[in-house]
Amino acid sequence: MNNIDIKDCIEMDRRDILSSRREDFHLNPDVLYFNGNSLGAPPRAARQRALQVIDEEWGTGLSRSWNAAGWIRLPQRLGKKIAALTGAQSDEVICADNTSIAIYKALAMALQLNPGRSRVLVDAKNFPTDNYILQGLVALLGNSHEIVYAEIQDFPAHIDDSIGIVFFSHVDYKTARINDVPELTRLAHDAGAIVVCDLCHSAGVMEVALDNWQVDLAVGCTYKYLHGGPGSPAFTFVAKRLHDRVRQPITGWWGHAEPFLFEMKYRPAAGLDQTLTGTQHILSMAVAEAGIDSILKSDISLIREKSKALTTLYMHLMSQRCGDFAFTTVSPAESGIRGSHVSYEHENAYEIVKCLLENGLVADYREPHLFRMGFSPLTTRFVDVWNSVSLIEDVMRSGAWMDLRFSAKSFVT
Amino acid sequence: MNNIDIKDCIEMDRRDILSSRREDFHLNPDVLYFNGNSLGAPPRAARQRALQVIDEEWGTGLSRSWNAAGWIRLPQRLGKKIAALTGAQSDEVICADNTSIAIYKALAMALQLNPGRSRVLVDAKNFPTDNYILQGLVALLGNSHEIVYAEIQDFPAHIDDSIGIVFFSHVDYKTARINDVPELTRLAHDAGAIVVCDLCHSAGVMEVALDNWQVDLAVGCTYKYLHGGPGSPAFTFVAKRLHDRVRQPITGWWGHAEPFLFEMKYRPAAGLDQTLTGTQHILSMAVAEAGIDSILKSDISLIREKSKALTTLYMHLMSQRCGDFAFTTVSPAESGIRGSHVSYEHENAYEIVKCLLENGLVADYREPHLFRMGFSPLTTRFVDVWNSVSLIEDVMRSGAWMDLRFSAKSFVT
Repeated sequence: MNNIDIKDCIEMDRRDILSSRREDFHLNPDVLYFNGNSLGAPPRAARQRALQVIDEEWGTGLSRSWNAAGWIRLPQRLGKKIAALTGAQSDEVICADNTSIAIYKALAMALQLNPGRSRVLVDAKNFPTDNYILQGLVALLGNSHEIVYAEIQDFPAHIDDSIGIVFFSHVDYKTARINDVPELTRLAHDAGAIVVCDLCHSAGVMEVALDNWQVDLAVGCTYKYLHGGPGSPAFTFVAKRLHDRVRQPITGWWGHAEPFLFEMKYRPAAGLDQTLTGTQHILSMAVAEAGIDSILKSDISLIREKSKALTTLYMHLMSQRCGDFAFTTVSPAESGIRGSHVSYEHENAYEIVKCLLENGLVADYREPHLFRMGFSPLTTRFVDVWNSVSLIEDVMRSGAWMDLRFSAKSFVT
Repeated sequence: MNNIDIKDCIEMDRRDILSSRREDFHLNPDVLYFNGNSLGAPPRAARQRALQVIDEEWGTGLSRSWNAAGWIRLPQRLGKKIAALTGAQSDEVICADNTSIAIYKALAMALQLNPGRSRVLVDAKNFPTDNYILQGLVALLGNSHEIVYAEIQDFPAHIDDSIGIVFFSHVDYKTARINDVPELTRLAHDAGAIVVCDLCHSAGVMEVALDNWQVDLAVGCTYKYLHGGPGSPAFTFVAKRLHDRVRQPITGWWGHAEPFLFEMKYRPAAGLDQTLTGTQHILSMAVAEAGIDSILKSDISLIREKSKALTTLYMHLMSQRCGDFAFTTVSPAESGIRGSHVSYEHENAYEIVKCLLENGLVADYREPHLFRMGFSPLTTRFVDVWNSVSLIEDVMRSGAWMDLRFSAKSFVT
């Protein structure tokens, strides 16, 4: 690519066939928002849906809404929609709980599938909660399993017939590297291991093909690229071939075969209904549906194409305009194996992110020394990328990050 | 009591010092709502709070709201408020997850406190999820514990030095009987057992004195008498003397001592913060706070007094007007040991509840043959009780429940 200027960015927005989708979101014009990989911006429909739940369903319908408004089937209804986005059959995904709890259930189920194997292979650099959850589960089970921590590029060397579970993320939360899920799954299956995959940083922003890839279990969140709202519920995928072989451990009444018979003994419901535990957070779940719907409205391949174009533009502009400032990229240069965020290492990343935040650019900082920007294809414009790099350049050139007394220039909007 | 007529009920409402609190709620004038023991009606502040979260905190604040809007400390903030309602210290209660998951964590913690004892005493008639959760946990642990099912009145005979945990509800979900928590706790402690108490049917509608009663662990929900909304989060109490001795098993990043250091190994946070697992459902939690606040505005002893008066009136009117219709009370006659719902057994309870529902009275049916009415002191009027019994009498006298083609009379409003 040659040098890019603002006119090029404006032209990219003009040609962007997803540009009108921005209207579906409630956006804050006063910030450059590059943290949709942490919390997606609200779809306008979220507000309307929340009011419908509070005024009509809770207020007028009251407890009758469990059936009349379909509250009781929201986990399945949202699961079906997420299944359509992740290459799964409609009854292979269910939406409930938060991601960490979903991981706990998924890992407990995976352990059952390989009772003879006592080693679990995990990505040492996975998002920490994934490994923390496994540590807690293994401790609860009396240290029944050995956790093998490895870099994901070394997984092939570690996958052997001692490994019961292979657990990793589709997209690395720091580097944005896309891991080769089908290939790792093939290796795992060849060795007789079960694959558990975390889709938090991929669901809603790129093609996921769980059934084609033969993944066994997966979990993900709805509050990043699915625009579900703060702390919106997680989802869990279990391949249909395993439905009859797994039992999740938090056996509450919502997972009972006949919850309203009030029997003495727990009997698991059929299929993924057994993975439910207790009453779902209906308001959060109903609003999450508005976010999922906002993604389903456009073809995921178009969303992925725009995501690649946004991150490519950003890396190009960073190189063009901020090449002097000791940013080291930790994200792949090739867009085909890069997710929808980009991270740079910088010795002063913490101060830089703080300074950018005070000047209206919301990005995030991750220990140690990581400056991370996330790109939400339905809400991020190419000109926003231009503006963000302009601000980064200003902050770096002026040394403003050193005193934080810097005053921002106005953005091109 | 002598015969009561509608004028008496109107007079009771006139004298009710809580009557004006009704204005704080969004009520549906077209139904007689007697299911607040399942889902409390919405406080008006809930709508406002939801819009604030969606428009200002999520929309304008975006991910910055985790800190700026205090999302990150909502579990503790709500916990502190619930502590004030349940006789606990402010750092002994935390609000998160759903009730069944909270029970799972509480039971896992309780089991650790008594590693040498392999029997758990439970109320055979407790709300099923309580016992289902225990069954699942014990199964996960390789059937490490024997579950002893007993009627709660027989607990004293079963509590001995083989029992590690005594687990029961403060108020029975069917009969509304108030169990003697301090006495059962004293017996359990004398035998060296740990007490886990379920407050779902008592929190927010009667005095609870966890610290005075010396309870060890407790859980409860916020969607019944705390008006928190459908599937609003649960709460967990752990007595401070135990904070350093327990570890909950679902060890996600939110319970880590330093969640943002992204360490390899889980290290539990201090106090009840370690009981957190993953990202909380912020919208549901923020709205729940409006419900909790609605209860905190009035003295709980006044709420309890009105609750007793409502259930007493209802039982009196049922006896006065529906004495011929083979309703057998299963709730205590004495209001001092009766919670805020009243249940009758009737051979045709299912059809009766269905017919009442079609005619605008929302109550509920519980297997087998149970007709249950719940009374929410801040939203239920005495005249509503009159109207409900009028409708029940009409339905029974006309035999309408047999064909459901009955057409309701208009209610006194």
